[in-house]
Amino acid sequence: MTGSSTDHMLKVTWSNSTGWGVPEIVPYAPLALDPAAAVLHYANECFEGMKAYRNKRTGKIRVFRPDLNAKRLNMSADRIALPSFDNDEFVALLCAFAGVEERWLAWSGNSTISESDENDFLYLRPMMIGTTPRLGLAKPNDAMLLIIASKLPSWHTRPLRVLASSPEESVRAWPGGFGFAKVGANYGPTLQYQTRAASLGYDQVLWLFDVEKQYVTEAGGANFFVVWRTEDGGVELVTAPLETGTVLNGVTRRSVIELVRERMPEVSVIERQFTIAEIVAAVDSWRIIEAFTCGTAYFIAPVGEIGVSGRDVKIPLKAEGKSGEYARTVRRWLEEIMYGEIDHAWGVAVN
Amino acid sequence: MTGSSTDHMLKVTWSNSTGWGVPEIVPYAPLALDPAAAVLHYANECFEGMKAYRNKRTGKIRVFRPDLNAKRLNMSADRIALPSFDNDEFVALLCAFAGVEERWLAWSGNSTISESDENDFLYLRPMMIGTTPRLGLAKPNDAMLLIIASKLPSWHTRPLRVLASSPEESVRAWPGGFGFAKVGANYGPTLQYQTRAASLGYDQVLWLFDVEKQYVTEAGGANFFVVWRTEDGGVELVTAPLETGTVLNGVTRRSVIELVRERMPEVSVIERQFTIAEIVAAVDSWRIIEAFTCGTAYFIAPVGEIGVSGRDVKIPLKAEGKSGEYARTVRRWLEEIMYGEIDHAWGVAVN
Repeated sequence: MTGSSTDHMLKVTWSNSTGWGVPEIVPYAPLALDPAAAVLHYANECFEGMKAYRNKRTGKIRVFRPDLNAKRLNMSADRIALPSFDNDEFVALLCAFAGVEERWLAWSGNSTISESDENDFLYLRPMMIGTTPRLGLAKPNDAMLLIIASKLPSWHTRPLRVLASSPEESVRAWPGGFGFAKVGANYGPTLQYQTRAASLGYDQVLWLFDVEKQYVTEAGGANFFVVWRTEDGGVELVTAPLETGTVLNGVTRRSVIELVRERMPEVSVIERQFTIAEIVAAVDSWRIIEAFTCGTAYFIAPVGEIGVSGRDVKIPLKAEGKSGEYARTVRRWLEEIMYGEIDHAWGVAVN
Repeated sequence: MTGSSTDHMLKVTWSNSTGWGVPEIVPYAPLALDPAAAVLHYANECFEGMKAYRNKRTGKIRVFRPDLNAKRLNMSADRIALPSFDNDEFVALLCAFAGVEERWLAWSGNSTISESDENDFLYLRPMMIGTTPRLGLAKPNDAMLLIIASKLPSWHTRPLRVLASSPEESVRAWPGGFGFAKVGANYGPTLQYQTRAASLGYDQVLWLFDVEKQYVTEAGGANFFVVWRTEDGGVELVTAPLETGTVLNGVTRRSVIELVRERMPEVSVIERQFTIAEIVAAVDSWRIIEAFTCGTAYFIAPVGEIGVSGRDVKIPLKAEGKSGEYARTVRRWLEEIMYGEIDHAWGVAVN
């Protein structure tokens, strides 16, 4: 994710007195922000991560469950004292913007698509910031909603190595805090620990919560799933629950849960608090099946190792050592919907 | 604090490859920030709050313990993945900037100063932001240090009514988080609860921590002190400790502690975790003496009432119902140093 932005942006401003103005799609350009703007001091900022995909047969641009991002943007905005924006209008603007920038997505008509372009996408970044220039801490009276877009480098090509955090040293989120919201305040503060993990050779931090219990929450801004066999031989797909308020309500997370519940009745999908010790125990007793992170940016990313208290716990990787079977299957199901290979209510074509 | 900025700003930029550039004092103007700049997405931002004062005899401008702000700025910057800046150079730049903007402070030479100007000051806001335009979450490679200044409205003229928060509903900071650092991520997320407190007629939130224990931490971005008589008749000045990592290491907090320890040997100054129940018990047993918040922006602000679970607990206010004696005395001691009425190592004259 070091790509540079495309050459347009969608922009609409808000003031407490006049409400939202008229949205415009304009050439990509720096924003002129007062140095006293709220966003630069008090982190009145939230965002969404989405992708636009091109259907390989029709050439049409598509987005995935944009209604969920619209709702989450409003939830995040409320948490960080920013205004709400109409859900339907958000989706309409997003589609309009994706249509304008569609030339950034590969299109080779009916000719053969080269392998590098096969799963091409455009990353879309809706964002809202508080712009009132005032050093007193108060709910902003002015805000701006933007949608920008960027080409991202391709997926991780190898399984992730994640480092389980030490909750004595660093904690990403807390009940009663804002870990459930996609606000900037959840991200910058993780970089200190993330930098340390990277210096030890890990790709991401697996954030644990509670010094004693060491619950698994999420991994570097992506949700985390583990698949294991229970003592009595059943298969469980387990992820942290939303009720604690410390985990992002990921669109990919929710989609994985819904698809597995619908299409794999033999798998129990369980949202509950679980500990890193449970993962280690599943590994040590050969009950572990696989683990993966999921999120919009890095999609379904298999986890191959988890660093736990100085030990690198190995997670099985079938499929040429690159992915577990569940991760690969779910990823394929999602791609079919995202790229419009099948008709599905979650896939929305941009006109 | 709704004042508008003065007409200059100090600006110096940093890049990972070339380090800090040459600082400039330039006309106050909007910043041109790329919409993908780190600060707008991941809250890579920290700041300081300081004041410039004019000595009423000499007319010279002064600042208060700027070395502490320099150190804290670097500590905050490190926590939010921003670069460090040389402490001595920071103080020199701050003084240079205060000198340029000194005309914003009242000066009536040896003539009588009108009452409204008596304790005039200029609020200084050093700030650092990460400016790298990149949507991937990573330590910024580019940053900007700015100092801006603003006139603030005068103090609260009446004692504060604060609302003790419900830690089940909202938590400001947590161990292993970043509550000790002056980063934007600590401020925006408090506005939702602060807005609710304001709608109930309270000036600030008194942030409690831990659902069961309900420890008192700090009040709306200011540190909180209580003065009470112990069961055995001694007088204690109590405030939350820094070790939990959930309380800002305030310059005014530290100065209050140091002055009372030095000048009031009869008072025990205690930094420890204490609970809202202890305050209520002290009130109910007539051991309470007073309470106040302290910080740079609102200085020493007496607290007259604390809303606790639906009850408004009254805190005594001597001195015409406006302040307790300890708050008034400490405030006066600090003013003498800030305005240069006495020579003291904490008061730094700007040349």
